[in-house]
Amino acid sequence: MNSNRPIDVLDKAKGKRILVKLKNGEEITGDLVALDLHLNMWLENAEIVKEQTKTKIGNIFLRGDTIVYSIVL
Amino acid sequence: MNSNRPIDVLDKAKGKRILVKLKNGEEITGDLVALDLHLNMWLENAEIVKEQTKTKIGNIFLRGDTIVYSIVL
Amino acid sequence: MNSNRPIDVLDKAKGKRILVKLKNGEEITGDLVALDLHLNMWLENAEIVKEQTKTKIGNIFLRGDTIVYSIVL
Amino acid sequence: MNSNRPIDVLDKAKGKRILVKLKNGEEITGDLVALDLHLNMWLENAEIVKEQTKTKIGNIFLRGDTIVYSIVL
Amino acid sequence: MNSNRPIDVLDKAKGKRILVKLKNGEEITGDLVALDLHLNMWLENAEIVKEQTKTKIGNIFLRGDTIVYSIVL
Amino acid sequence: MNSNRPIDVLDKAKGKRILVKLKNGEEITGDLVALDLHLNMWLENAEIVKEQTKTKIGNIFLRGDTIVYSIVL
Amino acid sequence: MNSNRPIDVLDKAKGKRILVKLKNGEEITGDLVALDLHLNMWLENAEIVKEQTKTKIGNIFLRGDTIVYSIVL
Repeated sequence: MNSNRPIDVLDKAKGKRILVKLKNGEEITGDLVALDLHLNMWLENAEIVKEQTKTKIGNIFLRGDTIVYSIVL
Repeated sequence: MNSNRPIDVLDKAKGKRILVKLKNGEEITGDLVALDLHLNMWLENAEIVKEQTKTKIGNIFLRGDTIVYSIVL
Repeated sequence: MNSNRPIDVLDKAKGKRILVKLKNGEEITGDLVALDLHLNMWLENAEIVKEQTKTKIGNIFLRGDTIVYSIVL
Repeated sequence: MNSNRPIDVLDKAKGKRILVKLKNGEEITGDLVALDLHLNMWLENAEIVKEQTKTKIGNIFLRGDTIVYSIVL
Repeated sequence: MNSNRPIDVLDKAKGKRILVKLKNGEEITGDLVALDLHLNMWLENAEIVKEQTKTKIGNIFLRGDTIVYSIVL
Repeated sequence: MNSNRPIDVLDKAKGKRILVKLKNGEEITGDLVALDLHLNMWLENAEIVKEQTKTKIGNIFLRGDTIVYSIVL
Repeated sequence: MNSNRPIDVLDKAKGKRILVKLKNGEEITGDLVALDLHLNMWLENAEIVKEQTKTKIGNIFLRGDTIVYSIVL
């Protein structure tokens, strides 16, 4: 197993817009600003997406263990 | 991956009002006074927000592993 | 991030009455007598609060990982 | 935070009858015989309490991470 | 807290028949053959007990973190 | 507690057909090819068993923490 | 127990198409590009499969602890 870790690939998405799916079913979109090894994230210009409606929420800290997956938009 | 950790960015919100979404669905707002690496938090002038009604609760300790995300208000 | 940990702030509530919300939805009130870093607690003169009715239960050990939050009354 | 740990206070209940509430909703009563730091317990003369009926089960090992709280009877 | 650990008491049940309650609600009975500190177990002559009917399943490995409690029969 | 670990007993089932019950309720059968201490498994000639119907799925990696138990067929 | 770890066998599927079943019930297919010991994955040309319909999502980071199993297609 070589050292090309998935978290390193995701780290390259800093500055880009991502969508994060949470374990509670919510989806958050935002600009990825900070990321750590626990998958904790800091997003800016974030929005909560719920049944087609988007709510602007500004800056958000996402706890890593609540994340299912993250898609680069 | 550089050392700009999401928790450090959140730490700068000390003294500001934040909204915390919990895994049990409850939302708590309050002034962020203390924070540790487990995401445990101490909030003052806190309120529980439930279906549009707010209940004042004073000072509250939030266990970090029950937190989904935190928004700076 | 300075060393003012949330658990240290909560520790100062020893001897005071607190309300603890559990992940199973129950609420316990009692006098905080002992506390550790896992958030395990020993309460005395405790009561279980369920739909407006209170049941006296005396002394209780609460497992930390079952706690959502703790409010100083 | 001094060293008066909640688990040490519970440890003094050895030989006494306790009630243990489990995360699956069941309640077990029994004589506390052994206890470790994970909150694993060995109870003797134990009974499962379910909707007012008690079932005698003799000796039981309780896994600590399934425990919500423990009350000294 | 002395060193009489609950897992050591359970270990003495090797060779005896036990009932194991799982977090998914199933109950397994069998002869306890092997046990480790994670509470992983190897049972022989095992049966799954479901609503009064028993299904013979032979030898079974039980993952410790799925266990609620274990009763010596 | 002697060193006859349950995982070592299961390890001897390599090359044999096993049934694995998962926490999400699914059952997988297959030939056990690889196993580690986290109970991660690699099965070949695997099938998903769901309400009496079997679906062939070839080779499968099972994450250990999603496993409830494993039966040697 | 020899050193042929399940994760090493899965690692050989890099470059191949896999299906990943998540704990929230979703299924993701994609080309496996990166993998670590936590089972975190980076997939490219990914699709979410939901009730027979596929949605193209491009590149995706999957958190390892949300994975049930992974099938090599």
